[in-house]
Amino acid sequence: MSMNQEKTCKSEPSIAMMFREEIPEITEAIIRSCEEPGSFTHINHEPIPSRQEVVFIVHALQKLIFPGYFSRETLDATNLRYKIGHSVSRLFDALAQQIIHSLRHDCFRYDQSCIHCTEQGYETARKLFRAIPELRRILTTDVHAAYDGDPAASSHDEIIFSYPGIFAIYTHRIATILYKEEVPFIPRIMSEYAHSVTGIDIHPGATIGERFAIDHGTGVVIGETTQIGRNVRIYQGVTLGALSLPPDAGNRLRGKKRHPTIEDDVIIYSGTTILGGNTVIGARSVIGGNVWLTESVPPDTLVVIEAPRLTYRASDSLKEKNSHVFT
Amino acid sequence: MSMNQEKTCKSEPSIAMMFREEIPEITEAIIRSCEEPGSFTHINHEPIPSRQEVVFIVHALQKLIFPGYFSRETLDATNLRYKIGHSVSRLFDALAQQIIHSLRHDCFRYDQSCIHCTEQGYETARKLFRAIPELRRILTTDVHAAYDGDPAASSHDEIIFSYPGIFAIYTHRIATILYKEEVPFIPRIMSEYAHSVTGIDIHPGATIGERFAIDHGTGVVIGETTQIGRNVRIYQGVTLGALSLPPDAGNRLRGKKRHPTIEDDVIIYSGTTILGGNTVIGARSVIGGNVWLTESVPPDTLVVIEAPRLTYRASDSLKEKNSHVFT
Amino acid sequence: MSMNQEKTCKSEPSIAMMFREEIPEITEAIIRSCEEPGSFTHINHEPIPSRQEVVFIVHALQKLIFPGYFSRETLDATNLRYKIGHSVSRLFDALAQQIIHSLRHDCFRYDQSCIHCTEQGYETARKLFRAIPELRRILTTDVHAAYDGDPAASSHDEIIFSYPGIFAIYTHRIATILYKEEVPFIPRIMSEYAHSVTGIDIHPGATIGERFAIDHGTGVVIGETTQIGRNVRIYQGVTLGALSLPPDAGNRLRGKKRHPTIEDDVIIYSGTTILGGNTVIGARSVIGGNVWLTESVPPDTLVVIEAPRLTYRASDSLKEKNSHVFT
Repeated sequence: MSMNQEKTCKSEPSIAMMFREEIPEITEAIIRSCEEPGSFTHINHEPIPSRQEVVFIVHALQKLIFPGYFSRETLDATNLRYKIGHSVSRLFDALAQQIIHSLRHDCFRYDQSCIHCTEQGYETARKLFRAIPELRRILTTDVHAAYDGDPAASSHDEIIFSYPGIFAIYTHRIATILYKEEVPFIPRIMSEYAHSVTGIDIHPGATIGERFAIDHGTGVVIGETTQIGRNVRIYQGVTLGALSLPPDAGNRLRGKKRHPTIEDDVIIYSGTTILGGNTVIGARSVIGGNVWLTESVPPDTLVVIEAPRLTYRASDSLKEKNSHVFT
Repeated sequence: MSMNQEKTCKSEPSIAMMFREEIPEITEAIIRSCEEPGSFTHINHEPIPSRQEVVFIVHALQKLIFPGYFSRETLDATNLRYKIGHSVSRLFDALAQQIIHSLRHDCFRYDQSCIHCTEQGYETARKLFRAIPELRRILTTDVHAAYDGDPAASSHDEIIFSYPGIFAIYTHRIATILYKEEVPFIPRIMSEYAHSVTGIDIHPGATIGERFAIDHGTGVVIGETTQIGRNVRIYQGVTLGALSLPPDAGNRLRGKKRHPTIEDDVIIYSGTTILGGNTVIGARSVIGGNVWLTESVPPDTLVVIEAPRLTYRASDSLKEKNSHVFT
Repeated sequence: MSMNQEKTCKSEPSIAMMFREEIPEITEAIIRSCEEPGSFTHINHEPIPSRQEVVFIVHALQKLIFPGYFSRETLDATNLRYKIGHSVSRLFDALAQQIIHSLRHDCFRYDQSCIHCTEQGYETARKLFRAIPELRRILTTDVHAAYDGDPAASSHDEIIFSYPGIFAIYTHRIATILYKEEVPFIPRIMSEYAHSVTGIDIHPGATIGERFAIDHGTGVVIGETTQIGRNVRIYQGVTLGALSLPPDAGNRLRGKKRHPTIEDDVIIYSGTTILGGNTVIGARSVIGGNVWLTESVPPDTLVVIEAPRLTYRASDSLKEKNSHVFT
């Protein structure tokens, strides 16, 4: 046995070589599979948007929106203008390029002419950069709303540094600008990046007012055509979604209003699901936890579920084998 | 006070030195704790699998499965063969090495002989690479299923670029091949990486048919012995889990079928929990949201909960102090 | 058309230049917005804690707590002392510096004198490093608890390598030490990092006993003043939270006990919500899935919901257009 083992160890490179001889064959099989009709590949010269670069832009813009918080170097009165200017200069091109790549990718794929892609890319980047002061103002209201409603927040700075809700809302407020300008891919790459980081899934199409707060946030879903007013607060696991979809829903319902409207000053507690494009939650209403709503609610209404009855028993019964009752 | 402060500032290096003198003692205490029986350490010469390298492999294989989408450089007809060939060549060794490390780690820990680890590592890597064309075909069906059922998807490319469901399913289809070959650690490192990125927790042991779609996905749990047919669609927060476990469940139930079977063409809406190894959801059934099921359902069945009654009140009542009614 | 296109392509640099001329104006607008009262910026010379560095520390400490598991290089008897010593030496300063930055940031912002920040920073770092052997012991009990209750775990090593629950608990056990020492920012940056990676949101203020296990974990929320005994096991989607909050809750309830107490040997199944600072779940109780509890439960009690009634129908009815019944 130990001789065998020794022999095996010595021959490790030769085992590797034996298997590696198949690499050309494996490679050709993969390439052949790329030629099959309907196969998803992006094999052509036109550049495509880069997820990695879009993620870089999300974090770099965050440093412009909350100056000094996320830099490793100090930002002070003496270098402020240089650093902000340098950052704007670099990011402006980076964002414009990604938008241009996205527009061209679609032009190419759908055989459209690509006359204005460059101009449109820069034009859209300009719109976003010009919006930064207003974005800063709105995000300030969001930070205040997060603080005012959360006893566990020890400072506004802690919220900016670490709250997933603020990161998700920040990313949404950037992504929705690009979405409204009909930039392909990038808004959704941004929002799905924030979803990955925070567990909060806000489609870039959603419209959301000032002073929006999401606490904890994991499992929150806010659909494409949702409309949310001012000073709304939601908790983990809240879905603002579409009603059930017929089998061909993808094509039939694309672009239609499918998600609810939440008016000003509404609070929605954890685990609640509100569905449907005609569902309106009236201003100042409070929706309790674990509610399932598919109908409108008038303003100033409190909605709670009649909690399911609980059964209490001695937990000794669990010691019986295969007790499955309480799962 | 300001003198004190100045003094403190000046002496910063000396404060550091004072504390740093304890570093040898702290180090020895940690090392001693590693020698205690039952302590978890991996202090020996045998290499172990690297989580970082496994994550690299997950992303590198994704570039082979969806060529051109995730590269920073352009992939076109002139360089396709070189890039794919180079990538296969590099990844083949990288994956084989990680598998060998995993096998050896187990041999070492459980005092087994380690005769065939190298050969088995390369053999398993070969199986996975030979499966890539078929994986590409199946994942194409998954992308189509995602698109067909989701009005918010604006293109197939958007799904490939950004949908967490597709990333989780892609990772699962890789991990499950290694799981079936009984590779230790790596399948679970892969699936837990996808869980971390997407909030979707699919155990590599689960068996899942073509055209599988997960929308939004945060909170989805699919257990080890789950079996899912063709063309199944599930939403965020769905658990396909085990019934409650007796206290020594870990050892008693390891390897047994504990999770449900979902037949072809089933849809399961958000927040629903389906439990138990004998539970079968018949083909073409639709399970509504927030359902809790521990029994089988015949084919072509619609299951919905009788929603808990809602209570509506004026939300003025909330202004009273300490109103806790609706939590 | 193609002439136009050609012209557009040629003029790409000039389009870029045209738009780039606005960069100074955009920069000035952003700088002006930083000067507005109430705007969140951190523009001053004092260094601030770095999220990136704190995340580095979390992962580096993990290598000290589970030696050999997460290193790329081999750790063996010959280099153990050097590697652990080098790592402690480097991390000790890194952690002390981040604590000092956090303390100074608060001193600066709230105009307090900053006499003892350096000393306090090193003092706190020392406390954490001295606690590592004990942390190793406690985390060993957590790994055993994860294994004992989970039939899908194939080894203790698999849990250390890949389980999100263990990563979240490890991070919490570090963060809570700093929280108890009243270090600003860093505990929450750590816990929100673990939240981002695992979907498990444990506030660093929570007190948690040995042998704590979280399975799957996505969506778990454990609030700031929660107290959890020994040998408690919870599943995905469990919230240990506060009762509903009055509008000015943030300020009124800061620091009060708002979250439940869970005694020894309790199991809480998935999707269950337990709320309120006076709510005590007695020892050895089992709380079933999807339960909503705002009252105490005596020891040795099994609590299950009377499941909502299910309605079964033929799913043919779904083929009718706009069937919304089951959403």
